[in-house]
Amino acid sequence: MTWKRTHHCSELTLENTGEEVVLNGWVATRRDLGGVIFIDLRDRYGITQIVFYETNDDLHEKAEELRTEYVIGIKGVVEKRGEENINPELTTGEIEIRVTDLEIYSKAETTPFEIKDGIKTSEELRLEYRYLDLRRPEIQENIMMRSDFYQSTRSFFYDNDFLEIETPVLMKSTPEGARDYLVPSRVNPGRFFALPQSPQTYKQLLMVSGFDRYFQIVKCFRDEDLRADRQPEFTQIDVEMSFVDEEDVMETTEGLMKKIMSDAVGEEIETSFERMTYDHAIKTYGTDKPDTRFGLEFADFSDLVVDSEFKIFSNTVDEGGAVLGITVPGQGDMGRGAIDRLTERVKQETGAAGLIYIKLNDDDGVKCSVGKFLTDETVDAMVDRADAEMGDLVLVLAGPSTEVYKQMGQLRLMMGKEHNLIDEDAYNFLWVTDFPLVEYSKEDHRYHSLHHPFTAPKPEDLDKLEENPEEVRSRAYDLVLNGYEIGGGSIRIHDRELQTRMFELLGIDEDEAQKRFGFLLDAFKYGAPPHGGIALGVDRIVMILSGGTSLRDVIAFPKNQKAQSMMDNSPDFVDEDQLDDLHIELKKYAQKEQQEQESQ
Amino acid sequence: MTWKRTHHCSELTLENTGEEVVLNGWVATRRDLGGVIFIDLRDRYGITQIVFYETNDDLHEKAEELRTEYVIGIKGVVEKRGEENINPELTTGEIEIRVTDLEIYSKAETTPFEIKDGIKTSEELRLEYRYLDLRRPEIQENIMMRSDFYQSTRSFFYDNDFLEIETPVLMKSTPEGARDYLVPSRVNPGRFFALPQSPQTYKQLLMVSGFDRYFQIVKCFRDEDLRADRQPEFTQIDVEMSFVDEEDVMETTEGLMKKIMSDAVGEEIETSFERMTYDHAIKTYGTDKPDTRFGLEFADFSDLVVDSEFKIFSNTVDEGGAVLGITVPGQGDMGRGAIDRLTERVKQETGAAGLIYIKLNDDDGVKCSVGKFLTDETVDAMVDRADAEMGDLVLVLAGPSTEVYKQMGQLRLMMGKEHNLIDEDAYNFLWVTDFPLVEYSKEDHRYHSLHHPFTAPKPEDLDKLEENPEEVRSRAYDLVLNGYEIGGGSIRIHDRELQTRMFELLGIDEDEAQKRFGFLLDAFKYGAPPHGGIALGVDRIVMILSGGTSLRDVIAFPKNQKAQSMMDNSPDFVDEDQLDDLHIELKKYAQKEQQEQESQ
Repeated sequence: MTWKRTHHCSELTLENTGEEVVLNGWVATRRDLGGVIFIDLRDRYGITQIVFYETNDDLHEKAEELRTEYVIGIKGVVEKRGEENINPELTTGEIEIRVTDLEIYSKAETTPFEIKDGIKTSEELRLEYRYLDLRRPEIQENIMMRSDFYQSTRSFFYDNDFLEIETPVLMKSTPEGARDYLVPSRVNPGRFFALPQSPQTYKQLLMVSGFDRYFQIVKCFRDEDLRADRQPEFTQIDVEMSFVDEEDVMETTEGLMKKIMSDAVGEEIETSFERMTYDHAIKTYGTDKPDTRFGLEFADFSDLVVDSEFKIFSNTVDEGGAVLGITVPGQGDMGRGAIDRLTERVKQETGAAGLIYIKLNDDDGVKCSVGKFLTDETVDAMVDRADAEMGDLVLVLAGPSTEVYKQMGQLRLMMGKEHNLIDEDAYNFLWVTDFPLVEYSKEDHRYHSLHHPFTAPKPEDLDKLEENPEEVRSRAYDLVLNGYEIGGGSIRIHDRELQTRMFELLGIDEDEAQKRFGFLLDAFKYGAPPHGGIALGVDRIVMILSGGTSLRDVIAFPKNQKAQSMMDNSPDFVDEDQLDDLHIELKKYAQKEQQEQESQ
Repeated sequence: MTWKRTHHCSELTLENTGEEVVLNGWVATRRDLGGVIFIDLRDRYGITQIVFYETNDDLHEKAEELRTEYVIGIKGVVEKRGEENINPELTTGEIEIRVTDLEIYSKAETTPFEIKDGIKTSEELRLEYRYLDLRRPEIQENIMMRSDFYQSTRSFFYDNDFLEIETPVLMKSTPEGARDYLVPSRVNPGRFFALPQSPQTYKQLLMVSGFDRYFQIVKCFRDEDLRADRQPEFTQIDVEMSFVDEEDVMETTEGLMKKIMSDAVGEEIETSFERMTYDHAIKTYGTDKPDTRFGLEFADFSDLVVDSEFKIFSNTVDEGGAVLGITVPGQGDMGRGAIDRLTERVKQETGAAGLIYIKLNDDDGVKCSVGKFLTDETVDAMVDRADAEMGDLVLVLAGPSTEVYKQMGQLRLMMGKEHNLIDEDAYNFLWVTDFPLVEYSKEDHRYHSLHHPFTAPKPEDLDKLEENPEEVRSRAYDLVLNGYEIGGGSIRIHDRELQTRMFELLGIDEDEAQKRFGFLLDAFKYGAPPHGGIALGVDRIVMILSGGTSLRDVIAFPKNQKAQSMMDNSPDFVDEDQLDDLHIELKKYAQKEQQEQESQ
């Protein structure tokens, strides 16, 4: 039987001295000192030291069996520790429990890795024994913080008149962007559900239904090729509001983030967040999700060098490209070898053709790597525009606009990290606005939505929708935190006619639009309010707030980069009966693969 | 553009008289009275009357366009209504808004059904236009109550040191009981994920990981043949606790229900809830989920009639069956015709062979329908045991034990409803305990778990596990509310050896067990705490609390009984490309079905 604990393992202090208590937990460590057995007993809440003295033979014998990770219950008396044994790091550090009785609930084999932080173990082993990895204090703290994060989020929305409404997981497949996960229907032969990439259409319908303010913390699914920071299933805070404009959604989101930061990580942050147009972000940071915890903004030298004799510069600008620079403070004395190595890395990692620099130091003065092709006035003008001072290093890239901004953005991040320019304690929230509505895909020979097809164009750009679609800006906004995109949203189209024009622009003709989104178009016939919203990525936000860099450390049971769960070996082959029921069969090559695997 | 509302439609009162306000909403009704246009403006919060007088020509002209379900914004001044127009049913019933400006955000065609409660419309039409059905006040209230229900639930768990932890939706297929929904993997050809029927194994692993107290409000999936009260995806409150016994889980659950009842429906209920063993429930109510809002408990006449000359009785008892009765109060004067009709219905609806009765009324005294075969003493003894009094009707069924309890249970419910014996305002919570661990399936020639294979047997019955498995009781408990099973749980097995014995009993050999549940068995090797939990059905509880009888009225976007969403026509056929990506193809007959459908 289980003894009911009177306290958890982070609760007892000197105030409890002399009390008889019952504790339950795991044996974290065990030391034998001259016949006395000291055990750190662990549970989710903390650690309490328990002691078996030699005074009781039977009990002591039983205690000698104990090994790490055994699960036990003990009865005992709270006693003050000797002065020399006090551990000020623990709440319970001034006491120990003199054990009077012991029950072993469960023995434990030696674990495949030690249950502590900072262990060197392969990611694979950790994922295979996820239930053990989850015992590590670091991951336990992440999961506990995530739990606080949820509650904080929900309180905020409830306090602000939002309704939590569940939307279906089994929904219609409307392929757009990423691939859908499909679910065959047994009852409807040949037909499939899709798992939601987002509840976008449902939340808009909820606005049409008049629910006014909706939120949900919801699982979404994307069958993409996985990168380090993607998971096939992910969690988002999904929000939609009626009778609002951009300001309302942004203000609400800022209030949410303020509360979360305070509740989950104890940081009091300022609103309202900085704002930046997409155009400015690209031209200044080379990305639509700039990390603004440090400077190194781009200087555009194009006009200064367009007429120079250095053909790489002048030709680049003539052909519509750009010559950009960033100033790395204090690196003006970088040696030749270091610069060569940097140049190689920049070529490899960003794809830039080469790296040009201007060093400013006391020994050489102002020295440009292509100085012989440039006048001193030009170099001085560049230094001036780059706000470089003695001791600084100006790095310059030239290339086509479609490439050079991105390359310089990568170089900027590289420099920020390498030269410790980033304030690791800062939380820099930033709104990026005024995105283009669409971009042209040379691959597909058609326009794609930058956000999604339901995003409203700016009213003042509407007349360019058919003629110059790439010049139309959308009413979308992304929320960026420390260089990560943590959310995105928009004011939506609520007009059937405009939505139809939008579909046409995206190459979705009327029949196709009706087949895929007819229910939404129809809904707009019966009185749709102006509405907008946002979706925020829970996994990523929790990752950033936990100070980590891997999503797998903030998800209880994550998949690996092949979308597999190492712990339970899923996905897995299934019986033919199950497929028969679903009216499907494997392609021949997949059948063969199954046979080969199962004969092993 | 959208005018920002200053108030919602249930907010303005006499206190606001003279204020200039902005409201947004839907035109609910419109009346023209001598050139003055009265409109009830509706939003989620309520209704406000707005008035267009003839004083402003342009505005009045625009107002004449307005039809029901138009979405508008208005500016105006709050005025006191004339005494004769006061509507005490509305918060805003004493005021109206004299409109000074009007903006039409969205026009509306005539809706396929009226937006009000109690309309006569087919379920199909309502589901097709779900976004309009969701505008009806009744459904809006259900969805809003459900939102409160969530928050109430979560506050309870957070206040009691539970952690909210998300478990995967894409998991391993471990077919047991209902059918799994499967999800083909693109990245892992031939392999499939399953959608969870419950996060059972994950929550147990979380206990092994030491999270101590877990809860989650989580979507689960069962690909079953649908009945009126089932949905392919459903929501449950999932709970697991370490170092606990049955009492702890039940006490926690009662605390939760008490809070929910108070927060969501304003009912203060008493704990602790009534308890009943499975055996008692079956023998007294013929079901393991008795509706205890009314009596009509079974009387067992078997011993009284075993020696009677009435062969139907004596043979039944000789063959191990039972003769049962219930007393319907005040129906002792039921006429011949009514009794005949009742007998027919009982035969049809319960499958009973016949219905025997004893009428007690002043005209006939005590009259048994098979009185000529029974002695007066026997009939009197039956009346006595059934606690029947003058004016009552005793209904008697005889049959094999496997059938007659169930039949009598159905007859009891029938009588309870027909004769208004059920207190519709009562909330009767009941724990059913001491379930059998397994039952034998003649169909499969093996034992099935009554709950699931992870349920612990009672320690005192453990020695019967191999010899007399059907006599072993489990540590499971079901929570019943007004005759609905709203939750079920158990103390789990946390010992690898016992779990293996359990799998063997269920005909799952070691290889199979390792393949399907190896990760859980392995986890038990490394120190597993005693643990237990419960899962509660959100949809059903909300349905009962809303006073409804259909799950579809408490789910925003439900499926119909063929697991289809009528609104967006899902599940639907998909492109062959998509199936190619997933390494599957349709069976020939399903391909044919698709071709036929698509050529229409």
